[in-house]
Amino acid sequence: MSTNKLCIGLFGFGVVGKGLHDVLHSTPTLQASIKKICIKNNSKPRSIASENFTTDANVLLDDENINVIVELIDDADAAYLIVKKALENGKAVVSANKKMIAEHFEELYALQQKYNTPFLYEAACCASMPIIRNLEEYYDNDLLQSFRGIINGSTNFILTKIFQEQVEFNEALLLAKQLGFAESNPTLDIGGFDAANKLSILLAHSFGIIAKTDRFIFNGITNISLQDATVAKEKKYSIKLVANAQKLADGKLAAFVLPQFVTEADDLYHVHNEFNAITTESSFADKHFFKGKGAGAFPTASAVLSDISALRYDYKYEYKKIAHQTDTVLSNDYYLKVFVSVDNIEKLNKKDFEWIEEWHNEFNYSWLIGVVHAANLFKSDWWKKAGISLIACPDAVIENIDYKKISKRSLELAGVV
Amino acid sequence: MSTNKLCIGLFGFGVVGKGLHDVLHSTPTLQASIKKICIKNNSKPRSIASENFTTDANVLLDDENINVIVELIDDADAAYLIVKKALENGKAVVSANKKMIAEHFEELYALQQKYNTPFLYEAACCASMPIIRNLEEYYDNDLLQSFRGIINGSTNFILTKIFQEQVEFNEALLLAKQLGFAESNPTLDIGGFDAANKLSILLAHSFGIIAKTDRFIFNGITNISLQDATVAKEKKYSIKLVANAQKLADGKLAAFVLPQFVTEADDLYHVHNEFNAITTESSFADKHFFKGKGAGAFPTASAVLSDISALRYDYKYEYKKIAHQTDTVLSNDYYLKVFVSVDNIEKLNKKDFEWIEEWHNEFNYSWLIGVVHAANLFKSDWWKKAGISLIACPDAVIENIDYKKISKRSLELAGVV
Repeated sequence: MSTNKLCIGLFGFGVVGKGLHDVLHSTPTLQASIKKICIKNNSKPRSIASENFTTDANVLLDDENINVIVELIDDADAAYLIVKKALENGKAVVSANKKMIAEHFEELYALQQKYNTPFLYEAACCASMPIIRNLEEYYDNDLLQSFRGIINGSTNFILTKIFQEQVEFNEALLLAKQLGFAESNPTLDIGGFDAANKLSILLAHSFGIIAKTDRFIFNGITNISLQDATVAKEKKYSIKLVANAQKLADGKLAAFVLPQFVTEADDLYHVHNEFNAITTESSFADKHFFKGKGAGAFPTASAVLSDISALRYDYKYEYKKIAHQTDTVLSNDYYLKVFVSVDNIEKLNKKDFEWIEEWHNEFNYSWLIGVVHAANLFKSDWWKKAGISLIACPDAVIENIDYKKISKRSLELAGVV
Repeated sequence: MSTNKLCIGLFGFGVVGKGLHDVLHSTPTLQASIKKICIKNNSKPRSIASENFTTDANVLLDDENINVIVELIDDADAAYLIVKKALENGKAVVSANKKMIAEHFEELYALQQKYNTPFLYEAACCASMPIIRNLEEYYDNDLLQSFRGIINGSTNFILTKIFQEQVEFNEALLLAKQLGFAESNPTLDIGGFDAANKLSILLAHSFGIIAKTDRFIFNGITNISLQDATVAKEKKYSIKLVANAQKLADGKLAAFVLPQFVTEADDLYHVHNEFNAITTESSFADKHFFKGKGAGAFPTASAVLSDISALRYDYKYEYKKIAHQTDTVLSNDYYLKVFVSVDNIEKLNKKDFEWIEEWHNEFNYSWLIGVVHAANLFKSDWWKKAGISLIACPDAVIENIDYKKISKRSLELAGVV
């Protein structure tokens, strides 16, 4: 494809699709043009002439002159069928659909191997940030130990507002909707599903693990209250929704998405509003920190454009980690140090905690800091129920609890035995 | 080269060369091995067997089995001759020698075009950070507006110590030497030459400008005093050595390396010790921030390794900006808002300032904040003399001064007329 002009069939003309259209018009050096745009609803008024549009997917998928399909629609199931047929027809595909990619990763990986056709999706993780490309290329031979990140812009915007302007969750969510940082149905974002989908994709490119979101612990921020934020502030923490992937001593991988207390010394502390960020730790390069806009039409379109540009020189993800790191598997056999707040202390069950380090009771608001086993969080949902909020502490992952160091007396004092 | 095993001829076995040797031994998946190492001094005791070494460069350069030359020596002139001959002999080259690359950029660029041989040097800018690759690939089609960065680890370490531990410059420099963050002859670092060399390289990859360091304003940190740090702290600033490249309204580019006041809201404020960082602003992706270790054997070796790895799939810099942005040229036709301190006020000349906004006189220490024309700084060296310290203010670049807004009276009060 290196010398070919890129002829694009675009699915979807929402904010990102329109953004891409505008961006392509501003970068004539790319030698790429959109031949046809497939939309669902032909009756909406559009900013460009109607002959650019069709509602028939096959007009794009069967057009031999179109060599690149760019898929920017909301519907994950429809998107999967489009991507599948495009790859089968030998067309390169660029997508920003994290839900579709996370849910069908294994099939999509197999399709790429079978048809030897590029499928790029930089925009699916952290919008404008080139995180997938860097994980693929730069940490290729370095030994990645961990990554942590803020990978959902809407929830970071909401948490920033709760912290900086002391508003309650629902008020912050309303503001996020008004400013276009949250969808009218924001469940995917605030429930943590979007961040979990992105973690799923990043696990494949960083550690070679193909795992759907039902394979690891995740939650969103719906239960975070202004009172939680007040406690965090007293402890000089901020609260962020953080995706974590960390090699354990046994070579297995701890992976989860949870609200987390972060200290001021943590780079993630300084990531505000719709920005996303990733920190990596590897044996040779040591610590890296990347920050960029994780939402918005132009930042997302810029990543789509970067993928389109990479197609000019036949760039493909090599999925080197999947090939090389076949021994890395997910584990829930570790402990997490967590903050748990609750509107009624009766909702908590002592048996869910290995031990409890600190607790406070106030009228209608109690909180504790304790240690839970990850397998407990994975298999149960007591901690996701209304009125309960669970926030990972800084450096939350504990590989071994030395019970010898916890005397019977301290456990009695803590009310554990 | 995609299927070939990489057979490396290594020049230099200092800390980075040894680091690379160790790293290659830990990453057998790379399928790369060092065949021979060329060193200057054969009598030093080495950690590996003597048959690995030679003092004859041609043993490596004329070996038909060696397909990659990795050049990690100090001497920029010798390095240039090695790289030149290697490219002429059709061998891919990886280098970390920013001085050599900046000084010979034009010839090296021409050699790559002529022999169509890859020459990669990610480690030459910000050690472990993949900044050149991202500038080449990711901002390919996006319209980069500016980048700013801390691109020298030694000076950032020294400034961090001056700030955090209130030690004088010489004491901080001594500590940097003891910890291995500064060379025994640190002039390249503290004089700003190293940062200027890196800016020169980054200008080519970001804006397509080939310019040696004598084409733009630069200085180091030798004149920064503890008193300057105290003033900065009072103003809630930190002082960093910052490389700047910024598109002006007329399409030309302002580029300079100067100590600069940075505010707490600036991501560069939180970059400490030997870390480096770059912020970029572009039309579509908006703001990006990258931070990573800018010094040290393993961080530098990791970038060299990443280049070696990229050679497996015949990766080359395409220098797309040089091809596309032929209209972007450097300019000194702009103003800079600066802080200037001096041990004796007589050393300053009013005519060097467009106007003076604020000034303080103390015994043996006076300072002012004023506006200078960049062309003045470029063509004169009054501001580099002993006892004078010039620090750019935040948002230092001013494109136009509206003299109508500066009344005669205010200029009189400021002592300008």
